[in-house]
Order: sequence, then C-alpha cells, then structure tokens
Amino acid sequence: MRILVTGAAGMIGRKLCNRLAAEGAIAGRPIESAHLVDVAAPTPPAGAHFPPICEAIDLASASAAGEIVASRPDVVFHLAAVVSGEAESDFDKGYAVNLEATRRLFEAIRHQRERSGGAYRPRLIYASSIAVFGAPFPETIDDDFLSAPLTSYGAQKAIVELLIADYSRRRVFEGIALRLPTVVVRPGPANRAASGFFSSIIREPLSGREAILPVPETTRLWCASPRAAVGFFLNAAALDLERLGPRRSLTMPGFSTTVGEQIEALRRVGGDAAVRLIRRQVDEPSARIVSGWPGRFEARRAQAFGFAAESSFDEIIRVYLEDDHVAAVA
Amino acid sequence: MRILVTGAAGMIGRKLCNRLAAEGAIAGRPIESAHLVDVAAPTPPAGAHFPPICEAIDLASASAAGEIVASRPDVVFHLAAVVSGEAESDFDKGYAVNLEATRRLFEAIRHQRERSGGAYRPRLIYASSIAVFGAPFPETIDDDFLSAPLTSYGAQKAIVELLIADYSRRRVFEGIALRLPTVVVRPGPANRAASGFFSSIIREPLSGREAILPVPETTRLWCASPRAAVGFFLNAAALDLERLGPRRSLTMPGFSTTVGEQIEALRRVGGDAAVRLIRRQVDEPSARIVSGWPGRFEARRAQAFGFAAESSFDEIIRVYLEDDHVAAVA
Repeated sequence: MRILVTGAAGMIGRKLCNRLAAEGAIAGRPIESAHLVDVAAPTPPAGAHFPPICEAIDLASASAAGEIVASRPDVVFHLAAVVSGEAESDFDKGYAVNLEATRRLFEAIRHQRERSGGAYRPRLIYASSIAVFGAPFPETIDDDFLSAPLTSYGAQKAIVELLIADYSRRRVFEGIALRLPTVVVRPGPANRAASGFFSSIIREPLSGREAILPVPETTRLWCASPRAAVGFFLNAAALDLERLGPRRSLTMPGFSTTVGEQIEALRRVGGDAAVRLIRRQVDEPSARIVSGWPGRFEARRAQAFGFAAESSFDEIIRVYLEDDHVAAVA
Repeated sequence: MRILVTGAAGMIGRKLCNRLAAEGAIAGRPIESAHLVDVAAPTPPAGAHFPPICEAIDLASASAAGEIVASRPDVVFHLAAVVSGEAESDFDKGYAVNLEATRRLFEAIRHQRERSGGAYRPRLIYASSIAVFGAPFPETIDDDFLSAPLTSYGAQKAIVELLIADYSRRRVFEGIALRLPTVVVRPGPANRAASGFFSSIIREPLSGREAILPVPETTRLWCASPRAAVGFFLNAAALDLERLGPRRSLTMPGFSTTVGEQIEALRRVGGDAAVRLIRRQVDEPSARIVSGWPGRFEARRAQAFGFAAESSFDEIIRVYLEDDHVAAVA
C-alpha cells in the first residue's frame, strides 16, 4: 500500500511517520511506499522498510495537489494546515491553505478517480479539531451538537469536514475527519497555535525553564497526548469506514481538565520548583480565543469505533516523559 | 440605500423584488437604487420608485462578483443558487456556483471594504435551506442541532453558512443565513429542486392538471409560503444583526405537515376531483433525497427575532390562491 502524508514535518506528522515506519504496515497490509510532504522537507523516519520520499511542497501552489496525488496513494493522511493563531492573524493565508488547497487536493483525487475509470478511491484521513465548536456550550458536548466555530481556523476545519462528508457520500474517496483534542504535551519549540501554552506550562518547567500562562487557571481543556493523537490516525487507517454512514466527523476522546489541575499534576512530577517557573500574564487575544473552546465532550461515537486516549493528566505527563522529554542540561 | 439581489429572476427573487418595489424602503430608509441580477435578465418590478437595473450576469464567471459589488450596495440579498436536484446531478456546477461564486462574492465585498478604508460594510442576507440538515434526526430539531447534509446542495449551503459566520465575525459584512423551509405552493413551471412535487401536487390539480407524487404520503415536510419566505428576507433586512451574536444561521419558522395532510387540505379546497388528479408514482432518487430531509423544528431563535410563517396548510393554500393562482382555462 502507498501512503501520502501532508504536514509530515509537523509535530504530529513526524510522530505519525515514525510510527508508520516502525509498524511497516496498516491493518496487515505492508506499506510499499510513503510520500511525506510539508512546506519544509520532512526528515525521513528512521528504520523504515519502505523507501520514504520526503519533499518540500507548498500546498498553496496551484500545481501541488495534482503532483502529490499523481501516484495514486491508497491512504492520504492530510495534516497540513495553517494553525489557529496564524489563520486568525492572516485571513488570506488561512483560507488559501486550510480551505482552497485542501479542496484542490480533494479535486485532484476526484480527477485521478475519473482517469482510473472509477477504480481509484483512496482513504482520506483528515486532522480536524475541536475548534469547530464555539461557545455557548452545554456542560458536556455530544455528537449531535452544532459546529459554530469562533475562529477562522475552526471555520475552515468545519468547512472541510462538510466537504469530506460530501465527497465520501459521492464515493470520490473514503473520508474521515478526526476532531483532535488539544494535544499536550507538545515537545520542542512552540508553533503559532493559540493553544501552545497548554503544553509549554508543563514542558518548560520540566526542563528548568520559565513558561507564560496567558489564561486563567479555571480554563478547561479537552486534551490527549501526541501518542494518543497518532493512535487516532492509525485506528482511522484500519477502520471499516462504511460503518460510519454519512457522518464522517468524529470528536476524538480526550481527558477534561483545567489549567489549575494541569499545574497540580506538574507539581506531583516536578515539585514546587517546577510550578514556580510558571509566570501568570494574561494575554487578552489568547484568553479570548481559548475561552470560546469547548472543554468537555462525550465522544461516544469515536469510542464505539475504537478510538482511545488517556484518562488522567498524570498519564499525559508520563507519556511526555517517556516519548519526548529532554532533561535540562545542568 | 442601494440594494443588490442575486437570483432576482427566481421565484422568490421575483416576489422579493416586487415587494421591495411596492414598499420602496427598508426599515424606513428609502431604496435609491436596485441592482437585480440573474443568469437571465430579471423582469423589472412594476411600479418601483427607484430605477431598477436588471442584468443577465452569470455568477460562475470570474469577474461577475467584482462587477456587481463595485457600486457598494448597502444590502445584498444573495439568492442565486443551483438548486438541489441539479447540484446533485452536476457536481461541478453545484460547487462552482453555490460555493465558489459565493465565496468570490464575499471576497469582492472584502476587497471593496478594504478599498473604502473600512467604511463599507454591507448587510448580506443569504438564502440557506433546511437541506443543511440530514437524517437521523430527533423528533424535533432544535437550534443547536448539527448540520449533516445528505446532498451536495445541502453541503454547499452549510459551508456558506460557516463562511457567513466567519466573515461577519471578522466584520467584513453583517451577515445572516436564513434556512428556508420547503417553500410551497410554488407558482409556475417546476424548477429542478427535488422538492418541486410538494408544490405541484397542489398547484396542478387546482388548475385541473395532473401531478405526480413521487414519495409516500407519510413524508413529512417543514413548509412556508412564498409570501412568508419574502417576509423572512424583509425581516432580516430590518433586524439589528448584532443581537444575533456569532451564530448567524437561523432556521426559519414553518409548519410541519405530511403529504397526506397536504392532500386532505387540497380536498377541502378543490374537492375529490382535484385529489383524483394526483398520480402516485414513487421515484426512488427523489424519495431518497426527500427522506433525508427534516420535517419538524422548534425554530425558537428565529421566532424570538420576529420571523413568522403560516400555522396551517390550509392557510398556505389560501396564500397561493390569493397571490399566484391562475384559474384553469375552461
């Protein structure tokens, strides 16, 4: 089987590629080739049995979609996106990548399907987000609750979800949209996602560095680890998608916690010294964006289809320490 | 005030233009000019005090949006669309008009706003549809229920709703999306909407002609008259849209009835002779499309904002007889 990963140099993209390289197969079918693309060339995953082709391709260019689909990949993991903070500050760039380039990708698949006489019909797995939801919310959000995003990023994700359902219904591809929780603890340098601090207030103090908390401690989040997020994509790759019926967007499982509870979990691992490294400095734009995000879901459909995440924030920190933590240089 | 109406030659567009011509003002502000466009040139409404400019403009052409927005209309009524049946049979045309041309219209407004230094910010009133909803449904659909359309037309309407909310939040325009019920009784020849028979089974027998019923009598619909639909647009034009907050899509009020109840109402007006002109001939594609449509709503938000419709199907037939019925030639 041939796979294509967009956004392969991003944090989750990288981890997904490493995991695919380690497993070498999807649902028992060996991976024969992997095309890994991002705006900057992704690093080839170590130890892959298949030959990874790593390319710097900007999906915003008009020809990119046609090029990456020309080899007719069997599974497309579409993770490439302009993140929430940047899509909010750069309206044009957000729509150009998150909506228009994505639609061109879908059309390129449709074109290949037509050229193949209907034989080509790949699986398309999309990184959506709980940012498709916007306040006001009920206490717990169920699978029938409306998408009413409060950011351009959330609007773009919700629009692509509708496209995926329609293209899947029209049998252009077999699509599924995974609404990722806030993924914590992110390793490495922060990106421009408005949610970055949820990770940095854990990661930085555990490495002896200061971190800024721009929102109140009462802020609630729905979160899962990067390892769980990669697991969502692998589960989606192996699932019988016909069982989903026409509704192709699934809110992924996660753990509901508050920033205050995050900090207490940090204290249990890193002690008071770590907690003292968190500097409270409310940033109105961040606080406003994040306050419109949902903090608690049922995620029943996703659980019924075998998607699973952590059940405590301590567990999420443990995953970070196992997978990504780089000890402070003394 | 300057107004622009797209889809002005359509059934509702025509009635809206006639009503605007008769009233001559919106919320007390006189209409100074009206630009009425459609793929075929609209007929100028009779008795208008303002000079209507009626033009044949195909919104699918790349330059159309820029042209119609160049004069900076204060209120844009955006009704132009490829209807449900055609958007289902012609995938490309549906997306080209219902999504891409609409997005170009929004971008043209954004461009004019930027050129005006932020002074220009029109009101945009969009004809959405209850086709944004798809089965399975609860018994009654409330204002928080998800959009999960089962047609490309419904997907395109739901996508534009998300764009309207985002562009409104970004203050490009003041937008509102009116989710129209099934509009019955439509006068004149049928268009390619899958819902056309809901009208023809009343209209045709009342004129002594046969009509085909392609779905079971148990089929439930949420309906309102063309007069009520025009009223929704006028109410939206006069409303303080800031009060809506970020959620800019409103399910319009209507009356929940079944095809069987429609037929009994027809019998009360036209007698058994009229009912005998309905020929039952189930058409699978139509039945499938319509069976995925919702039949009962609460529409609480819309009612709170002053939108109103009929409360019986007899009343809907009476409106048809008053506004549109052409007696059969003996």
